[in-house]
Amino acid sequence: MKFQVKFLPDNKTIEVEKGKSILAAAISAGVHINSSCGGDGVCGRCKIIVRRGIVVSQPTGRISLEERRQGYCLACLTSAESDLEIEIPAESRLDLSKISDEEAFLSRLKGVYEESAEIDKADFVSGEEAFSHSPLATKIFLEIPEPNLEDKISDLERVYREIRKRQDIPVMQMGLTNVRKLGKLLRSSDWKVTVTLGKRNDTVEVVLIEPSDTSDKNYGFAFDIGTTTISGQLVDLNTKKILGTKATFNKQANFGADIITRIIFAQKEEGLERLHHAVIDGMNSMIQDLVIENNVDLNNVTCCLCAGNTTMIHLLLRVDPTFIRREPYVPTANFVPVIRASEAGIKINPRGLLACVPGVSSYVGGDLSAGILASGISEAEDLSILIDVGTNGEIVLGNKEWLISCAASAGPAFEGSGVVCGMRATSGAIQKLSIEPKNLGVSYSTIGNSKPLGICGSGYIDILSEILKAKIIDKNGKINTDIKDKRIRKGEFGNEFVLVDKKDTAHGQDIVITEMDIDNLKRAKAAIFAATESLLKHLNLNFNQVKKFYIAGGFGTYLNIDNSISIGLLPDLPRDKFIFIGNSSLAGAREILLSADAYHKANEIAKKTTYFELSVEPGYMEEYVAALFFPHTDKERFPSLKI
Amino acid sequence: MKFQVKFLPDNKTIEVEKGKSILAAAISAGVHINSSCGGDGVCGRCKIIVRRGIVVSQPTGRISLEERRQGYCLACLTSAESDLEIEIPAESRLDLSKISDEEAFLSRLKGVYEESAEIDKADFVSGEEAFSHSPLATKIFLEIPEPNLEDKISDLERVYREIRKRQDIPVMQMGLTNVRKLGKLLRSSDWKVTVTLGKRNDTVEVVLIEPSDTSDKNYGFAFDIGTTTISGQLVDLNTKKILGTKATFNKQANFGADIITRIIFAQKEEGLERLHHAVIDGMNSMIQDLVIENNVDLNNVTCCLCAGNTTMIHLLLRVDPTFIRREPYVPTANFVPVIRASEAGIKINPRGLLACVPGVSSYVGGDLSAGILASGISEAEDLSILIDVGTNGEIVLGNKEWLISCAASAGPAFEGSGVVCGMRATSGAIQKLSIEPKNLGVSYSTIGNSKPLGICGSGYIDILSEILKAKIIDKNGKINTDIKDKRIRKGEFGNEFVLVDKKDTAHGQDIVITEMDIDNLKRAKAAIFAATESLLKHLNLNFNQVKKFYIAGGFGTYLNIDNSISIGLLPDLPRDKFIFIGNSSLAGAREILLSADAYHKANEIAKKTTYFELSVEPGYMEEYVAALFFPHTDKERFPSLKI
Repeated sequence: MKFQVKFLPDNKTIEVEKGKSILAAAISAGVHINSSCGGDGVCGRCKIIVRRGIVVSQPTGRISLEERRQGYCLACLTSAESDLEIEIPAESRLDLSKISDEEAFLSRLKGVYEESAEIDKADFVSGEEAFSHSPLATKIFLEIPEPNLEDKISDLERVYREIRKRQDIPVMQMGLTNVRKLGKLLRSSDWKVTVTLGKRNDTVEVVLIEPSDTSDKNYGFAFDIGTTTISGQLVDLNTKKILGTKATFNKQANFGADIITRIIFAQKEEGLERLHHAVIDGMNSMIQDLVIENNVDLNNVTCCLCAGNTTMIHLLLRVDPTFIRREPYVPTANFVPVIRASEAGIKINPRGLLACVPGVSSYVGGDLSAGILASGISEAEDLSILIDVGTNGEIVLGNKEWLISCAASAGPAFEGSGVVCGMRATSGAIQKLSIEPKNLGVSYSTIGNSKPLGICGSGYIDILSEILKAKIIDKNGKINTDIKDKRIRKGEFGNEFVLVDKKDTAHGQDIVITEMDIDNLKRAKAAIFAATESLLKHLNLNFNQVKKFYIAGGFGTYLNIDNSISIGLLPDLPRDKFIFIGNSSLAGAREILLSADAYHKANEIAKKTTYFELSVEPGYMEEYVAALFFPHTDKERFPSLKI
Repeated sequence: MKFQVKFLPDNKTIEVEKGKSILAAAISAGVHINSSCGGDGVCGRCKIIVRRGIVVSQPTGRISLEERRQGYCLACLTSAESDLEIEIPAESRLDLSKISDEEAFLSRLKGVYEESAEIDKADFVSGEEAFSHSPLATKIFLEIPEPNLEDKISDLERVYREIRKRQDIPVMQMGLTNVRKLGKLLRSSDWKVTVTLGKRNDTVEVVLIEPSDTSDKNYGFAFDIGTTTISGQLVDLNTKKILGTKATFNKQANFGADIITRIIFAQKEEGLERLHHAVIDGMNSMIQDLVIENNVDLNNVTCCLCAGNTTMIHLLLRVDPTFIRREPYVPTANFVPVIRASEAGIKINPRGLLACVPGVSSYVGGDLSAGILASGISEAEDLSILIDVGTNGEIVLGNKEWLISCAASAGPAFEGSGVVCGMRATSGAIQKLSIEPKNLGVSYSTIGNSKPLGICGSGYIDILSEILKAKIIDKNGKINTDIKDKRIRKGEFGNEFVLVDKKDTAHGQDIVITEMDIDNLKRAKAAIFAATESLLKHLNLNFNQVKKFYIAGGFGTYLNIDNSISIGLLPDLPRDKFIFIGNSSLAGAREILLSADAYHKANEIAKKTTYFELSVEPGYMEEYVAALFFPHTDKERFPSLKI
């Protein structure tokens, strides 16, 4: 049976199944009601007033007798027995989880800021069916035989029995909230219910029980939580289809550009709280956008799988990251327990689950574990390298026998942050570019073929390579101001080269690259190259012994390998050794979201991978300084460039 | 390090370990602070004001910036860094869990009411060491090796590793609350912590982490929650010693004397809520009394194990019992998940666990499973019967191959309720009595040898048998008013026999037995006898085939078997077949509290025991009516009585 529930003052009406809670109905209708306990009837924040209609409401001490007389109920414990008019009082509308907009006053990083935006094929690790289809949360529709005098097992065991007819689950759990509503729910839904089973720390929990068949509507989110960029993906857990992908800058950047400054900020008063809210606010708005665009009911989003570096995961969970940067650099957790997403403030179904990809150490996180999983290097006989180009650049070397990793603070330049005209790899970003050396004419293409708005990481690689070839810059990265061309000029941030004139851009501003940008990019590529070199040296290996070379990062769909080599980001190896795999962290997170086997494998990877601390390696600084040239101080290392 | 924390306005001071939460300190000091989420920082109800001293406080959205400036914190997220003065504001002192005293207006059952009172050896099933010592919650003191550059696993895995050095635990869980405080706690306590491990639905949870070594202080409660009587026992989980036992009337009796009337009451507005609070209030005051008497810190009470009939367990957990009395009589759960005790409102350590002994069916609950476990009949080759004499009398017949059970509504007379001078088997209760037939002189003994206050179940059995022998009553239970004796008179409730004159009683009132009492007792014994007979008949068995006959119930330490036979409560069998085992439900609950093996066995028992529905058995009513005589309509069944 279904009823019409109208929410006031929003004046939104939604059709609701008998037995569904008013809180769930409000979530479906996109009406905000406070709730901090995940609908368990504990926090008492989801007070509503029933203005018209009949409800059934579970008893609670959170509503006084006086309030009850005025029609107050808790939305999570109340369901419709007729059409309803529900008023949401002011105190239930104020969103306590949002922090003040003080950060708006804080200096913003220079760069083109957009709201979270759709990206095409942000990750595209080859879709081999390596893992079984067994998502973090699954829905099963149960038509339960009604009890009779011959078959009198209790409601709870009856539900368990029905589940076990379909799946062999030895350890099953159900929270008291679900037990409390079970009797009425089963009978009012005519013994036809959908259960959501969640994998929770090696046990299976009955996360949700809903009336009727909603098993065809089960969605999850995969997230890559980077220091600079957060990418999220809405996935149909039944079909494994990606419904949409978005990325947004991590608003934590307002409090510090890199991991270390954020850990320091976390120690200030309210620092941890603000960093926590900055990341979950970004995730929540991405979730909101994607469910609305795809017409998905938020109640049917039952789980979230997050990959991120160790600090990002601590901040996501509001766990103090202090000890990550204190010797001996030990995080609170690399293997984080599966929790309810609402415990971390993530707004999906209030009882939905949140899992994190296990990390290796304080500076090599679950994002790399996910990347290793997605690239498959942990399964290969041959020696491979994976470089994940991010603000915290992470590198892993190994094969199916062993894996060793390190991290280098590269800065956010290749993510389009901290560079004057930088932007993420999204619509309007220049991703390919070439320069005619004779007249310095610039040809480019943008993502989505729209008017240019800025430059993303892969665009910068092409630009650097091209201005180097055209001798617009020297090997040090300085712009040759002897060249008399209107494209070369002095700008607000020093010498710059104009790539696109304002008349041709989407926002009516020149798109340029400055000497400062070039310097930032140079440092980033040097950090990554030197780290890779040092890791190999540490093991008495060299680049030639590496059979496959995977490059990952938020570059969008395109990365020019030749250009990456010619600027010295990648080593000078036969080009067919290189495989660009996009956002491997997000791809790995999605695989884990969709498969318990992949989750298991990620655990093994995180346990197996050793960590090599670069900062205590004597040769690293030398390697880094030597790499602060285009392509490198030591020409011999780049023989094919013939420079 | 330790600090002095003073609570205002209580003006109580307590010494607190560094790292221990203020909420825990308040609990230790016996100072009440509201909290409904178990100290997870979710409910925001435990607000305190720091008046003097330094604290560290985890961030929370439950405290506004304005409040923070005024010194407000959440007690559960705050710990001392110096001596403190803490004010508990009015809003945090109001105990929302207590319902109004409206029930005081409701008619109280006639009977002698006491507050929960100490009882001697309330259960005394022989203390064979049948089960391993592995309590529901165990404490382990860990001296954790500090991390260094060679040993850098995270805090969480470090704790797990240390636990696994001592115990092989494959599946371990830890909630986010504990993860969040882990980093600081480990370091501020110099890597010396005590973890409490709880068995939770086939997994092991790290329930608590505390600074320093508290492993020698670990306590639990075993409860028998009866329709009329609640018995509780404080147990030292390390030594298995019973520190104290108390019993109290179940205040739910104010809302109905038996299961059926309570289920009906639960359907009224606030009915379920009031029944729930009636039982937990009783349990909580028993807990309070026992921890104070034994000088036990409530924080060190880490678990609770409850046995009760199915309706009592539903009401304890605030689960709607409606469907228990609707055909086909199916409860919501027989096998109840282990939950946090605070979820049910039980006030022990806010993160402590609550487990319930699994039940068989709607009318045969975990109290009988516990009794079967304690009596050992499920392990015996020979056929045995266990009769648990309670308001809901439960009977089980079987051996190690099979078990069959039934239930009979006997009423509360043998628990000393619903009878004019009835009381529980506690100090002042007449438990033995004899009458000199010639002069009707009464000799008696009371529990504790104190002045008599009333009559308990075993006393009533003796009285009935003696007044029958002295022909003060006939076989129907009517008082022979032809006897001219001042002890036989007409009273407020009809004809009565005076047992003790008011000048000899503790409360200065005559202690009498009335015809109405006799009628209630007759119905009770008839229900139990008829149920036992019907169960045997149903299986084509007779009493002679039963090798052992266990009698359980809240009779205190004494039950006269001969007298029980002569009034027709028990069948006329060789006396050496009978074994009185006291409160077998409480004894079984304690065994399960102390042993995972016993818990496992109780699960097997509940699964294996079949349920026989008496109400649909054609012969039962006939048997019942035939048993409404002393000892029975059919004399042939009691040959040894020579009547």
